[in-house]
Amino acid sequence: MKQFAVIGLGRFGTSLALTLTRMGYDVLAVDTNEEKVNNIMEKVTHAVQVDAMDEQALKALGIRNFDVVIVAIGQDIQTNILVTVMLKDLGVKTVVSKAVTELHGKVLERIGADKVVFPERDMGVRVAQALVSKNIMDQINLSPDYSIIELMAPVEFVGKTLAEGNVRMKHGATVLAIRRGNDVIISPGAKHVVNDGDVLVVVGRNDKLRDLEEK
Amino acid sequence: MKQFAVIGLGRFGTSLALTLTRMGYDVLAVDTNEEKVNNIMEKVTHAVQVDAMDEQALKALGIRNFDVVIVAIGQDIQTNILVTVMLKDLGVKTVVSKAVTELHGKVLERIGADKVVFPERDMGVRVAQALVSKNIMDQINLSPDYSIIELMAPVEFVGKTLAEGNVRMKHGATVLAIRRGNDVIISPGAKHVVNDGDVLVVVGRNDKLRDLEEK
Amino acid sequence: MKQFAVIGLGRFGTSLALTLTRMGYDVLAVDTNEEKVNNIMEKVTHAVQVDAMDEQALKALGIRNFDVVIVAIGQDIQTNILVTVMLKDLGVKTVVSKAVTELHGKVLERIGADKVVFPERDMGVRVAQALVSKNIMDQINLSPDYSIIELMAPVEFVGKTLAEGNVRMKHGATVLAIRRGNDVIISPGAKHVVNDGDVLVVVGRNDKLRDLEEK
Amino acid sequence: MKQFAVIGLGRFGTSLALTLTRMGYDVLAVDTNEEKVNNIMEKVTHAVQVDAMDEQALKALGIRNFDVVIVAIGQDIQTNILVTVMLKDLGVKTVVSKAVTELHGKVLERIGADKVVFPERDMGVRVAQALVSKNIMDQINLSPDYSIIELMAPVEFVGKTLAEGNVRMKHGATVLAIRRGNDVIISPGAKHVVNDGDVLVVVGRNDKLRDLEEK
Amino acid sequence: MKQFAVIGLGRFGTSLALTLTRMGYDVLAVDTNEEKVNNIMEKVTHAVQVDAMDEQALKALGIRNFDVVIVAIGQDIQTNILVTVMLKDLGVKTVVSKAVTELHGKVLERIGADKVVFPERDMGVRVAQALVSKNIMDQINLSPDYSIIELMAPVEFVGKTLAEGNVRMKHGATVLAIRRGNDVIISPGAKHVVNDGDVLVVVGRNDKLRDLEEK
Amino acid sequence: MKQFAVIGLGRFGTSLALTLTRMGYDVLAVDTNEEKVNNIMEKVTHAVQVDAMDEQALKALGIRNFDVVIVAIGQDIQTNILVTVMLKDLGVKTVVSKAVTELHGKVLERIGADKVVFPERDMGVRVAQALVSKNIMDQINLSPDYSIIELMAPVEFVGKTLAEGNVRMKHGATVLAIRRGNDVIISPGAKHVVNDGDVLVVVGRNDKLRDLEEK
Amino acid sequence: MKQFAVIGLGRFGTSLALTLTRMGYDVLAVDTNEEKVNNIMEKVTHAVQVDAMDEQALKALGIRNFDVVIVAIGQDIQTNILVTVMLKDLGVKTVVSKAVTELHGKVLERIGADKVVFPERDMGVRVAQALVSKNIMDQINLSPDYSIIELMAPVEFVGKTLAEGNVRMKHGATVLAIRRGNDVIISPGAKHVVNDGDVLVVVGRNDKLRDLEEK
Amino acid sequence: MKQFAVIGLGRFGTSLALTLTRMGYDVLAVDTNEEKVNNIMEKVTHAVQVDAMDEQALKALGIRNFDVVIVAIGQDIQTNILVTVMLKDLGVKTVVSKAVTELHGKVLERIGADKVVFPERDMGVRVAQALVSKNIMDQINLSPDYSIIELMAPVEFVGKTLAEGNVRMKHGATVLAIRRGNDVIISPGAKHVVNDGDVLVVVGRNDKLRDLEEK
Repeated sequence: MKQFAVIGLGRFGTSLALTLTRMGYDVLAVDTNEEKVNNIMEKVTHAVQVDAMDEQALKALGIRNFDVVIVAIGQDIQTNILVTVMLKDLGVKTVVSKAVTELHGKVLERIGADKVVFPERDMGVRVAQALVSKNIMDQINLSPDYSIIELMAPVEFVGKTLAEGNVRMKHGATVLAIRRGNDVIISPGAKHVVNDGDVLVVVGRNDKLRDLEEK
Repeated sequence: MKQFAVIGLGRFGTSLALTLTRMGYDVLAVDTNEEKVNNIMEKVTHAVQVDAMDEQALKALGIRNFDVVIVAIGQDIQTNILVTVMLKDLGVKTVVSKAVTELHGKVLERIGADKVVFPERDMGVRVAQALVSKNIMDQINLSPDYSIIELMAPVEFVGKTLAEGNVRMKHGATVLAIRRGNDVIISPGAKHVVNDGDVLVVVGRNDKLRDLEEK
Repeated sequence: MKQFAVIGLGRFGTSLALTLTRMGYDVLAVDTNEEKVNNIMEKVTHAVQVDAMDEQALKALGIRNFDVVIVAIGQDIQTNILVTVMLKDLGVKTVVSKAVTELHGKVLERIGADKVVFPERDMGVRVAQALVSKNIMDQINLSPDYSIIELMAPVEFVGKTLAEGNVRMKHGATVLAIRRGNDVIISPGAKHVVNDGDVLVVVGRNDKLRDLEEK
Repeated sequence: MKQFAVIGLGRFGTSLALTLTRMGYDVLAVDTNEEKVNNIMEKVTHAVQVDAMDEQALKALGIRNFDVVIVAIGQDIQTNILVTVMLKDLGVKTVVSKAVTELHGKVLERIGADKVVFPERDMGVRVAQALVSKNIMDQINLSPDYSIIELMAPVEFVGKTLAEGNVRMKHGATVLAIRRGNDVIISPGAKHVVNDGDVLVVVGRNDKLRDLEEK
Repeated sequence: MKQFAVIGLGRFGTSLALTLTRMGYDVLAVDTNEEKVNNIMEKVTHAVQVDAMDEQALKALGIRNFDVVIVAIGQDIQTNILVTVMLKDLGVKTVVSKAVTELHGKVLERIGADKVVFPERDMGVRVAQALVSKNIMDQINLSPDYSIIELMAPVEFVGKTLAEGNVRMKHGATVLAIRRGNDVIISPGAKHVVNDGDVLVVVGRNDKLRDLEEK
Repeated sequence: MKQFAVIGLGRFGTSLALTLTRMGYDVLAVDTNEEKVNNIMEKVTHAVQVDAMDEQALKALGIRNFDVVIVAIGQDIQTNILVTVMLKDLGVKTVVSKAVTELHGKVLERIGADKVVFPERDMGVRVAQALVSKNIMDQINLSPDYSIIELMAPVEFVGKTLAEGNVRMKHGATVLAIRRGNDVIISPGAKHVVNDGDVLVVVGRNDKLRDLEEK
Repeated sequence: MKQFAVIGLGRFGTSLALTLTRMGYDVLAVDTNEEKVNNIMEKVTHAVQVDAMDEQALKALGIRNFDVVIVAIGQDIQTNILVTVMLKDLGVKTVVSKAVTELHGKVLERIGADKVVFPERDMGVRVAQALVSKNIMDQINLSPDYSIIELMAPVEFVGKTLAEGNVRMKHGATVLAIRRGNDVIISPGAKHVVNDGDVLVVVGRNDKLRDLEEK
Repeated sequence: MKQFAVIGLGRFGTSLALTLTRMGYDVLAVDTNEEKVNNIMEKVTHAVQVDAMDEQALKALGIRNFDVVIVAIGQDIQTNILVTVMLKDLGVKTVVSKAVTELHGKVLERIGADKVVFPERDMGVRVAQALVSKNIMDQINLSPDYSIIELMAPVEFVGKTLAEGNVRMKHGATVLAIRRGNDVIISPGAKHVVNDGDVLVVVGRNDKLRDLEEK
């Protein structure tokens, strides 16, 4: 089982640490701030108050034995960079670092970060996508032209079969799955009737999908 | 065409405004900070330096005519709350507000925010999901048990048909689509051969999917 | 007997807590500041140093068993709002919150505060009323047109009966009571003689009362 | 007509200045803060941005010609004191100063303030009185033993005459007036019937009044 | 023997406390700052770290039994004023307070300070007087026209008798005393010869004295 | 006529500059703070806003032509030292600098200050001397053993001749002068009668003088 | 002729820019601080006030055409790093960056700095070397064992030939040159007589040189 | 063996203390900052946390017994000056102080510092010299016209004898020594062949040396 360490327990780092824990992984949570460490203490495998700039302390934690270390320090770019370089020098196999700006991201890549993430930027993109239609609940961008969307079944489809709704024809879109409560119907047939409250997972060209959203 | 206003041009708000603009929508970007406004000026429809607590200024902008106003103010919870309530009182139809904590989110809902988003928290979840497998590129959680994942085709599938890979049998998972460069093959047949570099979109139970990721 | 908790021991909160205690009620006084708690310690039923944002600590105090909790936090609007919503969620029956501005007051009402008070604003009104006449000592506004005022007996009434003073006739005003030292004479007869130093309680139209004040 | 000047446009000072203006008096509002002056500019007779510590500027305003000058500066005790002494030296007839603590109040009296007010302390007292009964709306304390209260007519009195309610007998309390909508009935007779929604103005001993409140 | 307390151990307060101690008086030195108290601890009768705003602490020190209490607090005018009024209320017989400005001095007098001193202002005057002549060493201003000065014997007087120097005649000035090393010759006769290095104490009109200085 | 420049317009520097001006000398007042310069502008010969660390600006003022330059900068020891050394290097004949501590004074002497003054320390000494007797008004210390004091005539001397008062005999003290209102009587005879309100200028041994003070 | 740009005009950067200018090179000096730019304006080829984080401004300066750009920003490690990476991306051929710590230096190397300098660290080494002998004036470390030193001729050598001084024999050291005033004698012969005030340039093993120093 | 004390453990002071220790000297390292003292604790003879302004503490350390005390305090000019003067007064034989500006250096000299160093300024000079040629590695300035330089052997010299390279003739420069790996060849003969990678130590006129560098 993979072991993760998360350095920096701001909102992003905390959410990350908790999610990994919920998925069943071992997580070490690290911050300089005592209060933040105490708050997460009982919700992760291990939490310690350590200054991540203190190389000896990181060694004492056996940081190099973790499979992935995430540098979630956000406010202090300098510390974020210096800790990232230190972790790579200590021999950590995979270091993931949070970047604030493009330039910051470029520095992280050059000093050896294995993966650079831009949470605020990416979340801005996601929320924007969600906002443009009140029906779309989630989305995967397959290519600049194609996406998979998860959307509330439009009113005019309710009570009809997929064939009647004729999704593929009119919209150049295909229903891949239907979520009905906690059940998931995969590759539903053309005669499948759409219920009120169904959630459709549809793949198609973006322009076709947009027509669908606006129903 | 829908019109959006984004108040607060931090990294989240900026990313949101730029994404909406790229999607072709009209976007008004608002911040009290002159430098932030100047930086985004030429990349959105309109950008103004205004104190969002100044009700007269908001009225002068015709804020109530926007379809959606997003309160992306993050650092200052108080202002975030007061601006949200002011926008609803001014008659804005849809107000989306960024929350920092669960309690903050609860306040926003009660004072009338139409949608509350938690970017850092949600991004923590997403990044955690991405980290647990180096192959998974994106993901939609259909239910606590089912997900759709987008993953790099595992090495052992390459050169085989889907039937040989026998995804459904062994993994309780179904390949919904294959992305090959910029093309997307929807509902590929069982005889479809997986190429090196293909990206598979797979639906299935989470435990089955995890087996797949770890190939 | 009702039980009160006062959160926030600024000058308003302290005065409130002390007055309730003097009236014979049980009062719990709460603040994050140790010095403020120590200062009030021996003057109320119970005083504790607690961060009101700490939900566990509030629960441990049994806050939901108090009949009325007053949020007297004034400087920090954010905390004032978040504590108010937390108290309602914890099931406190009556939450009274101090507002700083009208907009703040509107937020407090929407998140469920049972009563919102504006001490500085209201005190400004009261002091203004007191200042416009040097004789008026206190006042109840019955309606836009009618008030009850408590005023020092004007010099020209001293030594005369109420009939001679003919208050009702000339002024459209009625003497409801006379305070003489610690005694109170209710509904005094028309033959009652006004002494020097008497305090009259008079009801009437505001314009008539103003004539009276200016005597 | 009396002329007032209010120095210090915090919440208390602003409320005071607005109330005096609404009563029809001439009011000069003074603060060092440009924004505060601009906010009140159109709501009072005259508003100027002046440093109250600048004796020449105060003279230039003709401050000594005002009947009453209220020093509503609250945060900065030092300035509050120095401005008060300066105003008396400039010959202002009546100077009213806002005190923060008892000791501060004592200093203000000694340096010649004609009246010292304690808004937060007094408002704490008033709100406390209002809270102990949900029916009492306002109150005048005549003596330690006697008060006049304004309260919602208790349910059990509705539909009965005052004699039946027998207020005086049972409660040692007298109904001085009844407010019914915008009308006021002064010294109502014993046969007067109490309606639902009536507000009673009652005088009596405090212990008797408390019985009444708790009905 | 008189007992003194000095509150505020800045440079002025410290110098004052040390001088009084050297003169043989009992001195209590008080400051809120631990370091300042420690520095003076062994050089005065008693030194304590106390917040002078803490009335109970002052009582515990028996402050009212001191003959003179000097409030040497300089930076914080507010505390200077409030401590002064508190000391008078506690019954201290003589309170001496340091003032920063004329207005501050006026406040101190009105709240009951028995003596108000202006060290910086007065020292500016003294140093100015010393600078205008390089010979004058000290000075007492008897009246606007007359002074006593202590000055180095001008070169042209050395080796002559006072009669020859003819001080009184030419300068309207009288030599009251001559200091020669550690000896003092009082009311020296006209035949007294001035030595090199003698210091003359001279009384006279200011204009005459100025002539003398400039020799 | 000598010309003075005063650098640093705190309370000490201001008082110094004003006194020199009143004595009829030309005074240039210098400070970095515009407000302080404006306040003194019309009360001295010339006042300029200049950063005293700016060597070019000092040269432009012709600083080397002043007879005496006083460095009255007090808060910022570093600037006080650097400006002093710069002035000597610019060729100013006499530089007088204000020292805060003994160590600071030592530095000023070594870097070439012609005179070092310690206003707060010296004023502490003076006020201490004044306090030990309520009658002494001013004092010159001639030697460790001898002083001249100016004191209110003790009650028991009033109405008697100096011979009766027998000051010299009993007290080893000699009355050098008597100040009566604005007049000064120099070397008064033994038959001179002391009036109520007279101020005596007395020379003598310190122990004898102390006896006199305590009358 | 090479062209240099120096970004950051602290003491190190200023000294660097001035030295390069004195050597006859074109130097562009850059800082965000107006005062620093003005101070150096007339002493270098060109000086501009620019925020080095502003990529457009750097481009406008034609920064990529400079042969060497030195990032002398010292206090702000973050800006130092980000500007360094930006300069390399803009295509500057040689970027020299000032590092504060070893870790910082490591980051600079990885992001592409062509040369990293540690002024404070290196100067500590140099000053240490200079201090261990009061005679040594400068020094080149050839290897861990060998150095060239420049030292005042030891007293016991004065008036003797180099042969008599027998430097090579006794000390394992060779005199490479003698500096006499402004003249330099290269490879002086064994019969050369050492004068008082000569400066010897000597090469040898460190331990031998140390013996020499301590003469 | 000489004993050194270093006061102020910034980067310059730390580097100085470590270098002296490596050279085998006893070093006492002093700073007010606990962390800095701990960091160097095990790398020098002795390290203590002491406020250098505390004269008693310096005495207790026996500071006057150290041969050289270096005042490496850099940020705080005032403390730098005051500690320097205090050390001289305590009788320290040699005090070396770090100066920030020329004026500061002048003060240090006048108050008795035995040596004044300007690390940032001097390092700026050194780095400038190193930058103008990429081959020069170190340098001693003998006079305004002559220098000794250490440079990488220019490519065109490699494989030739010194005579062929004819350094002296063409360049007015003499090769004093050749460093080859860890060996040093002193006063190499004209037939000596230059290898690739050799480092030449050359003396000559600056203009001739510059020609050489640019090869």
